[in-house]
Amino acid sequence: MSGPLRVGVAGLGTVGGGVLQLLNGNGALITHRCGREIKVTAVSARNRDRDRGIALEGIAWHDNALDLASDPNVDVVVELIGGADGIAAELVEAALKAGKSVVTGNKALIARHGPRLAALAETQGVALRFEAAVAGGIPIVKALSEGLAGNSLSRIYGILNGTCNYILTEMEYTGRAFEDVLAEAQQLGYAEADPSFDVDGIDTAHKLAILASVAFGTPLDFESIFVEGIRHITPLDIEFAAELGYRIKLIGIATHGEKGLLQRVHPCLVAADKAIAAVNGVFNAVVAEGDFVGQTVYQGRGAGAGPTASAVAADLVDIAQGHTHAVLSPPMAGSKTKSLTMDGNEGRYYVRLSVDDQPGVIAEIAAALRDESVSMEELLQRPNGSGQPVSFVMTTHEVAEAKMMRALARIARLPFIAEKPEVIRIETF
Amino acid sequence: MSGPLRVGVAGLGTVGGGVLQLLNGNGALITHRCGREIKVTAVSARNRDRDRGIALEGIAWHDNALDLASDPNVDVVVELIGGADGIAAELVEAALKAGKSVVTGNKALIARHGPRLAALAETQGVALRFEAAVAGGIPIVKALSEGLAGNSLSRIYGILNGTCNYILTEMEYTGRAFEDVLAEAQQLGYAEADPSFDVDGIDTAHKLAILASVAFGTPLDFESIFVEGIRHITPLDIEFAAELGYRIKLIGIATHGEKGLLQRVHPCLVAADKAIAAVNGVFNAVVAEGDFVGQTVYQGRGAGAGPTASAVAADLVDIAQGHTHAVLSPPMAGSKTKSLTMDGNEGRYYVRLSVDDQPGVIAEIAAALRDESVSMEELLQRPNGSGQPVSFVMTTHEVAEAKMMRALARIARLPFIAEKPEVIRIETF
Repeated sequence: MSGPLRVGVAGLGTVGGGVLQLLNGNGALITHRCGREIKVTAVSARNRDRDRGIALEGIAWHDNALDLASDPNVDVVVELIGGADGIAAELVEAALKAGKSVVTGNKALIARHGPRLAALAETQGVALRFEAAVAGGIPIVKALSEGLAGNSLSRIYGILNGTCNYILTEMEYTGRAFEDVLAEAQQLGYAEADPSFDVDGIDTAHKLAILASVAFGTPLDFESIFVEGIRHITPLDIEFAAELGYRIKLIGIATHGEKGLLQRVHPCLVAADKAIAAVNGVFNAVVAEGDFVGQTVYQGRGAGAGPTASAVAADLVDIAQGHTHAVLSPPMAGSKTKSLTMDGNEGRYYVRLSVDDQPGVIAEIAAALRDESVSMEELLQRPNGSGQPVSFVMTTHEVAEAKMMRALARIARLPFIAEKPEVIRIETF
Repeated sequence: MSGPLRVGVAGLGTVGGGVLQLLNGNGALITHRCGREIKVTAVSARNRDRDRGIALEGIAWHDNALDLASDPNVDVVVELIGGADGIAAELVEAALKAGKSVVTGNKALIARHGPRLAALAETQGVALRFEAAVAGGIPIVKALSEGLAGNSLSRIYGILNGTCNYILTEMEYTGRAFEDVLAEAQQLGYAEADPSFDVDGIDTAHKLAILASVAFGTPLDFESIFVEGIRHITPLDIEFAAELGYRIKLIGIATHGEKGLLQRVHPCLVAADKAIAAVNGVFNAVVAEGDFVGQTVYQGRGAGAGPTASAVAADLVDIAQGHTHAVLSPPMAGSKTKSLTMDGNEGRYYVRLSVDDQPGVIAEIAAALRDESVSMEELLQRPNGSGQPVSFVMTTHEVAEAKMMRALARIARLPFIAEKPEVIRIETF
């Protein structure tokens, strides 16, 4: 292993450029750390003529990214094109089939095709690594698969999408509406023109599916994840939450136990004094709980050229040192994991109702709750000016999701309900 | 590598017992994760007859721990005896010389003899691992040496001693004095009968020396660390700090740059809204800053059987998978690192003076500060009842430590100073 590890990089956008900068700038350090050079020998991108501010002399250029898979001067393909299918998926598969290791930052690809690609990598005796796919530069895949390898993990959760966390933080600090802050985030480049992947929770779900599989050793199961985004969160909810001692965060949560695996992504009210409540702006945080280690927390920047390049480099250093063991391991023989649905989840709820102020309102709401055994914990009522509907906020004790949803469906049909009830789950971490 | 990895455990106290419990309880999981069994084949402890609640059938017993080094049925020795010298050091050296890998949780040993032992391990082609030596179950050595391997790290700091953090947290919450809380911590088993290692900052310094060497690739240098403990912190300082927006934490800080390496351990005032200020009780936290990744934060339990066993298991899984690369690497060719002293450090200071209330007091203090170019930032004065000395608290702008200390020495000699001035450094993270 004394020769250089030869790397082919597909995709020279912000992240790809960052990887080249890192390998160039910290080259001597990396060579020292892993005992051999890590050298970019080939690249591929859409536009050869674009000035990226990176020296590409002596590096082979492929117009077609797929050619990296057959380039004899490439040992490892770094895939930074993105997208669950299309050229990215073709490239990764072709590279593995050609006996090359693959490093990718593509969460959609891993969440959708990870198990199949991991099996292919294992057959080929090469590595498939994706530290950059989850939580930016935080070495969380390594922490889970190696650092906590002695533990049986029971729960993993985190703030996994910087765009949503930025929007919620801004909404809280400025009192502005979701649409306003989203538009600003788009202008600042923190949110995509089509923000759905981020704000509807899909990106968080991709990452959660990967984390859960790595943490629990369960089959990667993106399809079963309960996903709810942050579009429905209003400044009023953030304000009421604060009054009740909570902050609102979009959190991905996976729990694994005797009953099975429950994976869910939704906005949460979290107690303001918890570590995860203090993670602001574009930062990510992951909490992993194991039977021996207890609770461990990992925080850092969740995106951007630097953090992502850092994660790609960590994977390359591992591969350069010959550490090619599978991260997404096939499930243990005889183990079967049932994916659970949200229905049976026991939790607490924040509910905001907008009601026309008339006699008997509380009695009817209370009856709907009682009939489903939902027990109220706190109540806040705030007048909205005469003639306007009244904001009526409550939190509940623990109750099964299905019961809560049935009670809410009944409440939503009551004649004095002026708007669709707003429901946010309360998580006690 | 399909046969089991055979482990000999030296020391069956709380931690050693935890390791056996973990390898036993999570054996199937570990075998699945690393593709081979990790099996305890031999143990050594002082008292064979003590009931530890662990099944030792089928495991060889050695009255003399050194015999583990020559046991042909042992591939890896786990050293959990403790102490920088004596039997622990002899065992580790003998095991490495016998061609066995070593896993240890012994920070004093690594801080004192790490480089020599690491060089021996490298010569022998075996691993020397010590994840359990720093920050309990937090996989911080792995994060630094592998997860952030692509970065040039510039600063690492953390709360590394759970005993001190517990004492400071209790002092803050209850307003009780250091001695009181220490005595209670000793009763609860959170502090040793001889607490000096913990409360005088030595344990934190051991861990900081290890972290700095791993993070920066600089030679491990315990001797140069500036070390100050927490014995002089009073409830009054904690109260004033809170009034100024700070909390007091014992922090180990290492910075590495063009000028050299500065390592220091001392109580710090940290802004109350920073993540590290919120780390309470027996928890540890480490912050690592790299040129690409930015700031990353790691938190978890810093001690105890479970977290320590988790760290030992992670090292064993690595070794079982053949990952035997050096963690304490020899410095890069041509690199020389100058260890800096505290004198040149630029920082801000909290100073509490107890002064007899008389005219001209502030003028004389201000003159002493002015003559060393120390610029005051905030001032608090609080009467202590008539005839009693007055508490006079100030914070300063940035100034070199040497100047501040000269100014303070002059102030301490002023006739109206009733007690030794209390100085705590303010860290802006």
